[in-house]
Amino acid sequence: MSPRGRRPGGADTRAAIIDAARSEFAAQGYDATSLRAIARTAGVDPALVHHYFGGKPEVFAAVVDMRVDPAALIERVLAGPREEVGEALVRTFLMVWDSEEGRQRFLALVRSAMSHDDATRMLREFLTHVVFGRVTAALAQDGANREELELGAGLAAGQMVGMAIMRYVIRFPGVEHASHDELAAMLGPTIQRYLTT
Amino acid sequence: MSPRGRRPGGADTRAAIIDAARSEFAAQGYDATSLRAIARTAGVDPALVHHYFGGKPEVFAAVVDMRVDPAALIERVLAGPREEVGEALVRTFLMVWDSEEGRQRFLALVRSAMSHDDATRMLREFLTHVVFGRVTAALAQDGANREELELGAGLAAGQMVGMAIMRYVIRFPGVEHASHDELAAMLGPTIQRYLTT
Repeated sequence: MSPRGRRPGGADTRAAIIDAARSEFAAQGYDATSLRAIARTAGVDPALVHHYFGGKPEVFAAVVDMRVDPAALIERVLAGPREEVGEALVRTFLMVWDSEEGRQRFLALVRSAMSHDDATRMLREFLTHVVFGRVTAALAQDGANREELELGAGLAAGQMVGMAIMRYVIRFPGVEHASHDELAAMLGPTIQRYLTT
Repeated sequence: MSPRGRRPGGADTRAAIIDAARSEFAAQGYDATSLRAIARTAGVDPALVHHYFGGKPEVFAAVVDMRVDPAALIERVLAGPREEVGEALVRTFLMVWDSEEGRQRFLALVRSAMSHDDATRMLREFLTHVVFGRVTAALAQDGANREELELGAGLAAGQMVGMAIMRYVIRFPGVEHASHDELAAMLGPTIQRYLTT
């Protein structure tokens, strides 16, 4: 479905949209940023943004340079049994991060979020809206307490980001070489408890 | 007990020892660094290192610029009931980090560990040996499986570092303003399970 190369200047247009989106997301935050505003900043027709990306989550994924569509991954997790959401989330994170390329993307994202305010805000928007926003919205429909869910989602995000820091940066013995099965068995019940109690 | 000012040049000597220790820890790692080597690099008598700091954990704490002695805090946690180790660890971390100064120290440590190899190695040594090394050694005596303990300790470290990133850097809603009681209730059972199953 990639439109790259289909028309002259397509790659340039796509890059211009990503640049515009990066500055809009950083300045306004995820919620307040519209595809229309991104198009205006990029100097293109809004229809082109739809054409190249689909919607806001996909533009965001391109800005943070992910090769996978996080919204689609989360939908797949939520389509499964509720009692397996924790383990499914753990395996999804590992699948995205656990390659040389995924690791480098994770490091670039977290390193910049640790030191640049714009990047910090981007990561917050990404974690709260794109990843855990969908999860908590779905679980709130099941009747979970909204406020407890927010705390739980933040701790789940912290556990996954922290695990990745131990695995890829600190190389903590035991975490560095643990298999996906071992990590899912240990972390799955944690994430499940945070999101469903 | 601070010897500062007790003798002329004391502050300089102390600073020279810390500088020497920083380069020794970074070059050799925590395990392989001796107080004797630190003294040699600093150009002082080994007895002076003992005099100013006591032992290696205290020198290390000074290098990473902690105002508290981590070894003493961990001893206190381990002196309590085994079934409360998880919650006691969570409350200890929060007590150390949850002040303007503690937060700044945490940020300085993690930011440098994310981007400089020397600092990464320092944080790994600190987490594995000074903090969780003591915990896992004590729990292994109780009969826990050594290999599972290493994975559990790494995930516990990841949860605490990740929680702090969500609380102080990302300012994840729900985590940013959660009370120590709320965090202890959510995180305590997680850390307990990682360290004792």
